[in-house]
Amino acid sequence: METLFYAVPVAAVIALFFAWLFFHQMMKESEGTVTMKEIAQYVREGAMAYLKQQYKVVIAVFIILAILFAVLAYGFGVQNPWVPFAFLTGGFFSGLAGFIGMKTATFASARTANATMRSLNGGLKVAFRSGAVMGLTVVGLGLLDISIWWMVLKAFYNPSEAQNLVVITTTMLTFGMGASTQALFARVGGGIYTKAADVGADIVGKVEQDIPEDDPRNPATIADNVGDNVGDVAGMGADLYESYCGSILATMALGASAFFSVGTDAQMRAIIAPMIIAAIGVVLSILGIYAVRTKEGAGLKQLLKSLSVGTNLSAVLIAVLTFGVFYVLGFNGANGLPAWWRLSLSVLSGLAAGVIIGKVTEYYTSHSYKPTQKLAEAAKTGSATVIINGVGLGMISTAIPVVTIAAAILLAYGFPTGFHFDAANLSTGLYGISIAAVGMLSTLGITLATDAYGPIADNAGGNAQMSELDPAVREKTDVLDALGNTTAATGKGFAIGSAALTALALLASYIEEIKIGFHHLAEKSADAAAEAYEALSHASITDIVAHYDITLMNPKVLVGIFIGAMMAFLFCGLTMTAVGRAASKMVVEVRRQFREIAGILEGKQRPDYTSCVRISTKAAQHEMIFPSLLAIVAPMLVGIILGPAGVIGLLAGGLGAGFVLAIFLANSGGAWDNAKKYVEEGHHGGKNSAAHKATIVGDTVGDPFKDTSGPSLNILIKLMSMVSIVMAGLTVMLH
Amino acid sequence: METLFYAVPVAAVIALFFAWLFFHQMMKESEGTVTMKEIAQYVREGAMAYLKQQYKVVIAVFIILAILFAVLAYGFGVQNPWVPFAFLTGGFFSGLAGFIGMKTATFASARTANATMRSLNGGLKVAFRSGAVMGLTVVGLGLLDISIWWMVLKAFYNPSEAQNLVVITTTMLTFGMGASTQALFARVGGGIYTKAADVGADIVGKVEQDIPEDDPRNPATIADNVGDNVGDVAGMGADLYESYCGSILATMALGASAFFSVGTDAQMRAIIAPMIIAAIGVVLSILGIYAVRTKEGAGLKQLLKSLSVGTNLSAVLIAVLTFGVFYVLGFNGANGLPAWWRLSLSVLSGLAAGVIIGKVTEYYTSHSYKPTQKLAEAAKTGSATVIINGVGLGMISTAIPVVTIAAAILLAYGFPTGFHFDAANLSTGLYGISIAAVGMLSTLGITLATDAYGPIADNAGGNAQMSELDPAVREKTDVLDALGNTTAATGKGFAIGSAALTALALLASYIEEIKIGFHHLAEKSADAAAEAYEALSHASITDIVAHYDITLMNPKVLVGIFIGAMMAFLFCGLTMTAVGRAASKMVVEVRRQFREIAGILEGKQRPDYTSCVRISTKAAQHEMIFPSLLAIVAPMLVGIILGPAGVIGLLAGGLGAGFVLAIFLANSGGAWDNAKKYVEEGHHGGKNSAAHKATIVGDTVGDPFKDTSGPSLNILIKLMSMVSIVMAGLTVMLH
Repeated sequence: METLFYAVPVAAVIALFFAWLFFHQMMKESEGTVTMKEIAQYVREGAMAYLKQQYKVVIAVFIILAILFAVLAYGFGVQNPWVPFAFLTGGFFSGLAGFIGMKTATFASARTANATMRSLNGGLKVAFRSGAVMGLTVVGLGLLDISIWWMVLKAFYNPSEAQNLVVITTTMLTFGMGASTQALFARVGGGIYTKAADVGADIVGKVEQDIPEDDPRNPATIADNVGDNVGDVAGMGADLYESYCGSILATMALGASAFFSVGTDAQMRAIIAPMIIAAIGVVLSILGIYAVRTKEGAGLKQLLKSLSVGTNLSAVLIAVLTFGVFYVLGFNGANGLPAWWRLSLSVLSGLAAGVIIGKVTEYYTSHSYKPTQKLAEAAKTGSATVIINGVGLGMISTAIPVVTIAAAILLAYGFPTGFHFDAANLSTGLYGISIAAVGMLSTLGITLATDAYGPIADNAGGNAQMSELDPAVREKTDVLDALGNTTAATGKGFAIGSAALTALALLASYIEEIKIGFHHLAEKSADAAAEAYEALSHASITDIVAHYDITLMNPKVLVGIFIGAMMAFLFCGLTMTAVGRAASKMVVEVRRQFREIAGILEGKQRPDYTSCVRISTKAAQHEMIFPSLLAIVAPMLVGIILGPAGVIGLLAGGLGAGFVLAIFLANSGGAWDNAKKYVEEGHHGGKNSAAHKATIVGDTVGDPFKDTSGPSLNILIKLMSMVSIVMAGLTVMLH
Repeated sequence: METLFYAVPVAAVIALFFAWLFFHQMMKESEGTVTMKEIAQYVREGAMAYLKQQYKVVIAVFIILAILFAVLAYGFGVQNPWVPFAFLTGGFFSGLAGFIGMKTATFASARTANATMRSLNGGLKVAFRSGAVMGLTVVGLGLLDISIWWMVLKAFYNPSEAQNLVVITTTMLTFGMGASTQALFARVGGGIYTKAADVGADIVGKVEQDIPEDDPRNPATIADNVGDNVGDVAGMGADLYESYCGSILATMALGASAFFSVGTDAQMRAIIAPMIIAAIGVVLSILGIYAVRTKEGAGLKQLLKSLSVGTNLSAVLIAVLTFGVFYVLGFNGANGLPAWWRLSLSVLSGLAAGVIIGKVTEYYTSHSYKPTQKLAEAAKTGSATVIINGVGLGMISTAIPVVTIAAAILLAYGFPTGFHFDAANLSTGLYGISIAAVGMLSTLGITLATDAYGPIADNAGGNAQMSELDPAVREKTDVLDALGNTTAATGKGFAIGSAALTALALLASYIEEIKIGFHHLAEKSADAAAEAYEALSHASITDIVAHYDITLMNPKVLVGIFIGAMMAFLFCGLTMTAVGRAASKMVVEVRRQFREIAGILEGKQRPDYTSCVRISTKAAQHEMIFPSLLAIVAPMLVGIILGPAGVIGLLAGGLGAGFVLAIFLANSGGAWDNAKKYVEEGHHGGKNSAAHKATIVGDTVGDPFKDTSGPSLNILIKLMSMVSIVMAGLTVMLH
């Protein structure tokens, strides 16, 4: 049974091979005219220059944190000696995934534009395959990192001891912290970069000067296109790398602890299960990517269908195959492990929730449906009503996703435990929740491809516009972009839903880490105390909860909940004002250029693109530091001051408020974006009407909502959990 | 010692006497010119007409709920038979407090304007004394209701039995649910009314037609002024009635249960303490109101000082006198009750937190400080950056208040328990938290006066403008209004902080009610089951928590936290879109009048005020129903489906997310309002500049943030707790 594990590194290599293959195929395409090449080069250089700056800051942070962890591990002995290294590799691979994704995207944009000149289908192929490079790179690197650490640690800790399996899996969790830290910087930095440029370009370009998006006369337009790459592509890559690995690692850790008392055989099966599901997901993703094949000259409807076929196929197959995985892994309900069909139903609950959340997101944010249409109608009475109604819409749109995820949690917990919600079944139920998240993310290879190709198509459109190609090309890339938004909905639903489930699982992992903390403490203590500590290190989750009184009547827990909820808001506020500040600087610069450089607006004189790129780079680099460090320091401080009860409160409060806040921000932003497009399609006065101007204000406000603050929240929640887990040893020593 | 209780009804009568006295004094003032009287009459009629409509809906809801409670009490026997009646009186008194406050305000506005013609000081006196009518009415009616129920229930349940004291005090809590229900309808209905009118009037008047606020040519101007009365005055009255009574009732209930095992003497002391502190607060408030005395011809600075003297005097005195109260009540630390100075330090922690929250609120929202000045600067780059920065500012501004309230919770819990955070001290610590809330609200008589006189001065300004008085009068009323905003900060800090503390106390009261639910169950059960139920009805809070596994690892609790956080957002979204919808209707109507009725803009033709009043009335009446019912139904459903663990999760999640969301919305709204005023003072281009237009958009968006959705949240949180408490019997029966 253990040999099944080798499917995982094999799947990793397959994923990376196909990523390389698709990259290679894409690179064979022509980049088009000289201007197209030139512009692509500008964007590529800007993006690389920024990424270099970002990585400089991130490397500094990583070095400091690694030293801290080393001190805790080697100095105080309250931490596993592998932690500093695991932390560093997680960060490295996460950064690498973002880097490769972005590199690919910046090579793909001109090529997509050029292929689109040929046909819509041609453009789709280039863009989608480039998206697939990112999708497969993320899952490939993720599984590779997981496989390597699993093999290395197994060589050092004898896996035939139950406790060692717990130690191995919880140690591996800390590479999740590396990934989360990298992801947060990427999302926050990239998010600030892209939106400072976008907002700045829109305010002066669209609102004040009435020139279209991506117009080469706009000095901020290159910065805007660079931003799409560093924010939407590199940021998204690091983000989903973190989610993907986080869900697998958390499930492995829960598997090791949930079946601790059953024996190492059961533990091993539970540990391998999420890796195998992920490995199968890789194959299904590649299958799905190849299923996205259309005849030359295919129409929009056919393209949409063929994209949906790809994602749906892999989603349905993974749902079916999990039954087989658990069956083959011997989950027979009699060997101390839940029956195979029970855990598969957990996965099915997660998948169903993801689909529902995706559909609801689409309902609230697509202008094919009433909510966004009504939002567009509010533009008739000005920008203030657009904002009020958009905020309201986003807040209302949280209801169904939350109820859905609530149901999924109860079902995913309920199936493997026979719906017995008592303490004895706790670990098994949590394992069910966690494996559901793995199921949702297992086909990330393709869902991320459908998500990532949108920004590539968007950039291709930018390139076409700036290269002054036939407007028909831009129209086609817009169609591709819109297509991407529709097909990406399910993938986004999976990402949001799985984040909530994984965060729940991490709560339990934190308790596990607390137990290991007691083990370290026992090693360092005198006989009498050591015995008590050792007992706690073998206690059940319920015992630890009782030990620290992690109930909702403990004021420390309640205070933690308050602070956790506040952290979500504070973090969003910081990132949002960062965008506001940076965008203001951009506006001032763009206005200056229009004023001082004669002939820009007539297209006779090239604007100074690089000064705008510099503003975004500097702002992002400067502004990302404080909010990101706060996310790392806050859980440390709460742990030191309030102990585990406060930390669990913090994480639960942050998860509850943060999850809802994230959906609100994403959906308000999405609806504003599409309300604008709806008006542009000719409703309520169409382009350049007063209603259009009002929706542009909405869209601009929505930019940081949906692309900076909102998407960072999921990482914030998980990073706070990861920090708490890594710092658990110190917390236990102090409390 | 028990005779001390009679100080409470005496204080109630004193408060009501002075309320009557101030009302009488105000009514002796002249209402001014014929136009002034006429306009005041318009506003009065509109306000009364609306209130009648609102009460009709509310009465229907109250009848339905009272029937439901009667069925639960008399049909199923799972509830105390007094509940339906207590519920009704709470609603009645809360509504009455709002009604009297509003009646007074609508009589006071023209009189304030008229007195302001004489002198600034004259205006202050009329407005402030009218505010005092509301303040004293709220506390007077509150203490009266509490006194009556205490005496009635003591006559029916022998107070020398410990269990009876628990029954009496938890029964009284249900009149808190009546008050909360009334308050929610008043805040939501009034909030929608006032902001629909305000937003509608602003968009067409200020933005489109460039006519000033309260211009008689604006058809929505009367509706706007009516709105100030039904929203800011009547809504605020019902709201603070609920807070005031809620804090006292929750403390009484906790006092009865915390010292259950010590004996009835200790219980009685703990029950009476909050009432006595409130009674003393009444006297201090009246003292403070009289301290607000200025010489004729006083300047602005002197007025500000004299107002501050009033509020500060009563706050300092209550801090000092609580030491005396607990001393006299025999809290000596040896009779099973905490030492007098310990509980007083709890109160002091609460008061300090309130002051800090007030100051922080002022810092973030006043244009004397950097945050709002910077927000105004963002207007230079348009309305989108104003919105982005304002949202960010509000979110950031939640940090210090949350940390402050967290510290206050730990201190208020810590002092009476000697900072032992273990289960044995739980009830005593919670009593400390709860009594701190009572301390913060005890001087509500005067803090509400400083809060309520703002809208009165605002309305006086409206009257002056519409009656076309000398612009100097309007300027003076604006000064009074601004003065009110400054002095009201502390009161608002107390209100926000105490809401959080009271909500925490209500969590514990819910557990108490669960125990009483077991008692009812025992009465109806066969011998064997009855014994187990009876045992649970005498269990400690910790035992009940263990029985239902109310820990943060229980998925039901976690699901509850998600749903609670979502409820806060959903509720805000519903109220916000309600304002958006209603405002859009108002805009359409105002535009229509400008278009169709010739001569309005030239001032030759009166606009049709009543059609605008009708739109606001209808919208408010219609739109308030769903969100308010949701707040009542959601906790019932969660209780039925998930049981007590889910309910506690719901309440904690709602409290955590709702508290932070409320601060965010209030501060964003306040900062936008003042950023606009800052620009109007001549910065960044001054009035009618592009920056000014941008800040008007911010101000308009902020209207529903700060006056509809934000202030409703505190009530939502407490109403959900109250509903859960009242429905606890049914929940226990089902789980």
